[in-house]
Amino acid sequence: MSVTAPRGFRASGVVAGLKSSGARDVALVVNDGPAAAAAGVFTANRVKAAPVLWSQQVLRGGLVRAVVLNSGGANACTGAPGFQDSHATAEHAAAALSGSAVAAAPEAAGTGGRFPSIGAGEVAICSTGLIGERLPMDRLLPGVDAAVVGLAIDGGPAAAEAIMTTDTRPKTTVVTGAGWTVGGMAKGAGMLAPALATMLSVITTDAVAGPAVLDEALRAACRVSFERVDSDGCLSTNDTVLLLASGASGIAPTQAELTAAVTQACRDLARQLIADAEGASKEVAIEVVGAGAEDDAVEVGRAVARNSLVKTALFGNDPNWGRILAAVGTTTAAFDPDGIDVAVNGVWVCRSGAAAEDRSKVDLSGRQVTIQIDLHAGPDEATIWTNDLSHAYVHENSAYST
Amino acid sequence: MSVTAPRGFRASGVVAGLKSSGARDVALVVNDGPAAAAAGVFTANRVKAAPVLWSQQVLRGGLVRAVVLNSGGANACTGAPGFQDSHATAEHAAAALSGSAVAAAPEAAGTGGRFPSIGAGEVAICSTGLIGERLPMDRLLPGVDAAVVGLAIDGGPAAAEAIMTTDTRPKTTVVTGAGWTVGGMAKGAGMLAPALATMLSVITTDAVAGPAVLDEALRAACRVSFERVDSDGCLSTNDTVLLLASGASGIAPTQAELTAAVTQACRDLARQLIADAEGASKEVAIEVVGAGAEDDAVEVGRAVARNSLVKTALFGNDPNWGRILAAVGTTTAAFDPDGIDVAVNGVWVCRSGAAAEDRSKVDLSGRQVTIQIDLHAGPDEATIWTNDLSHAYVHENSAYST
Repeated sequence: MSVTAPRGFRASGVVAGLKSSGARDVALVVNDGPAAAAAGVFTANRVKAAPVLWSQQVLRGGLVRAVVLNSGGANACTGAPGFQDSHATAEHAAAALSGSAVAAAPEAAGTGGRFPSIGAGEVAICSTGLIGERLPMDRLLPGVDAAVVGLAIDGGPAAAEAIMTTDTRPKTTVVTGAGWTVGGMAKGAGMLAPALATMLSVITTDAVAGPAVLDEALRAACRVSFERVDSDGCLSTNDTVLLLASGASGIAPTQAELTAAVTQACRDLARQLIADAEGASKEVAIEVVGAGAEDDAVEVGRAVARNSLVKTALFGNDPNWGRILAAVGTTTAAFDPDGIDVAVNGVWVCRSGAAAEDRSKVDLSGRQVTIQIDLHAGPDEATIWTNDLSHAYVHENSAYST
Repeated sequence: MSVTAPRGFRASGVVAGLKSSGARDVALVVNDGPAAAAAGVFTANRVKAAPVLWSQQVLRGGLVRAVVLNSGGANACTGAPGFQDSHATAEHAAAALSGSAVAAAPEAAGTGGRFPSIGAGEVAICSTGLIGERLPMDRLLPGVDAAVVGLAIDGGPAAAEAIMTTDTRPKTTVVTGAGWTVGGMAKGAGMLAPALATMLSVITTDAVAGPAVLDEALRAACRVSFERVDSDGCLSTNDTVLLLASGASGIAPTQAELTAAVTQACRDLARQLIADAEGASKEVAIEVVGAGAEDDAVEVGRAVARNSLVKTALFGNDPNWGRILAAVGTTTAAFDPDGIDVAVNGVWVCRSGAAAEDRSKVDLSGRQVTIQIDLHAGPDEATIWTNDLSHAYVHENSAYST
């Protein structure tokens, strides 16, 4: 049920004609309340898309009533006119939503069955697609109108579908707490990023929680989920993760409970992103243990995850541990080069920095690959998820402008 | 004439049976003097191959009489026994060379037509090939003997051939000064690196110059040549560049003259590496101008050079400037995201961070590509050379263990 699993949310996904394929391309998620607290995490890329700049402003208030998401265009590198397009979209959505009927959401904090009157500053915007082109506003704004009309308490799956680009399937999640629920959707199959892996994700909950609690939960969750995914090392201009709380359950979990549930939702979505990464034939977990610090483990895992020679070797079913060691050697992590152990799918092919078990014992025929790296430098650890580098990746990213 | 273009050098390249192909795989370069000053630059990878650890020790003395190079095995991640193999190779070469006839090099600083008696500490070792396996010493040492016998003043081309791995052609260069010469060879077609781009290179000169002058010349040259090449962002365990001076010309150029000649030789070799990079269909020059500092220009150029989405777009003849901007945005360089101009093959497709000239005007059908990035943040600039990311790269690096 995606973002509409928690009470107090409606969503929709419609065809606005932004995608030439004719598939759904505008999604709307609204928070019917009673609360409308929110938190957001955005791309670390300094070249930020207009919707990111807009939504960062909106999130500063900690209050979000609606999120408009579109595929079919990133509205990035579009200058001041592009920012005005994001602003106009928020204005348009706010006007269309204000006073609209919410009969379909009977549990909503009754304002006489009507959505409250809201301003553009309560509407976040997310966009994904080709960089450098303006959005066709003559199609987008009617699409927003249609999305408002289409809002439904079971609209989560349609919304998840509408934000897909090169994704082959929608990504959704539901995590249940004691009387409260977390739901979520995400898209992203390319440009999975070092600092923030997903292009777009909206997480919802009916828990009672204010902006500060949501912010802490979302940052903690992203740090060990989306930020541990590194498919191709490329950092998008548009990455956005939003967490919205309606409070409709009437239950206020502890910070720890909320953080745990949001983390589980984000991890579930992050794994779905890796599973559907562009042209990947392997899903690779790089488990770094024995690190002197968690940051060291993350640095080592990421260096291995981004190494083209490691990734092509995995595509070729070659347990080339020498390339793994060469990647580890590029980091500043604490380790002794002659003290590193490496296992591929459970076979310790490298002990103390040199050949150990016979590499021919390694079975790489399956889709799931686990690389274990023991730095023997301390008690800390981290796992990074990545993919192989395949012909299909090259094909998908060379044949299409995305 | 490669490394034997300057006077005072002999070289050879022989078949020792390290490569299953039966091609030449052991090279020897000797400095017949009268001087034997040397400098070296080595990989920044913390996982260093045994020959790198050995040669770093040798170079500390600033004196190198001979260099043994082998393809067919990197002798990396081989622990203490691997280091002992490098040591034994140097011992073996020193013994075979000491007192051997140098009739073929009449201009050599006469010791009665005999090579002087040298120790292992005057012999540098370079290896390239698969990581993680011991070298077959029973083949390598007889190969060294054959290489000593084969030494010739026109042996440079054979030596350049013997160090090839996945290279499709040998790389050599000659730069002439006023009465003195610089010669060189290099190999490297994969693992072209962020911190040092070539796997192996030996530069020779008959100029009169001491170790400190050579060191300054070599570091300055590498900084703007091999270190500006970034084919796949992968840093090798074995990268080594050596500069040997025989003094046989009797002419001592100024530091500036020597640096300029060595830089020209290194740049020529670096360009040959990019031209022959594994599976590349494009040679790409990324010219960053208007930078606030040279380091900023290098950081931006490298971020673009390593971006898989930029590289696959180039393979697909797609002037996808949005991906270029997204890569620039990941850096810490000084710039205003709304103030960047980008040209692809001369067409300014992006001005002030947004779309400008029609991207369809860009002709990417040729092999040479120039990307110009103007940061509008200062007077500094740098050029990074890279390649596209092609099906052939994936094929070559997934189908073979290298």
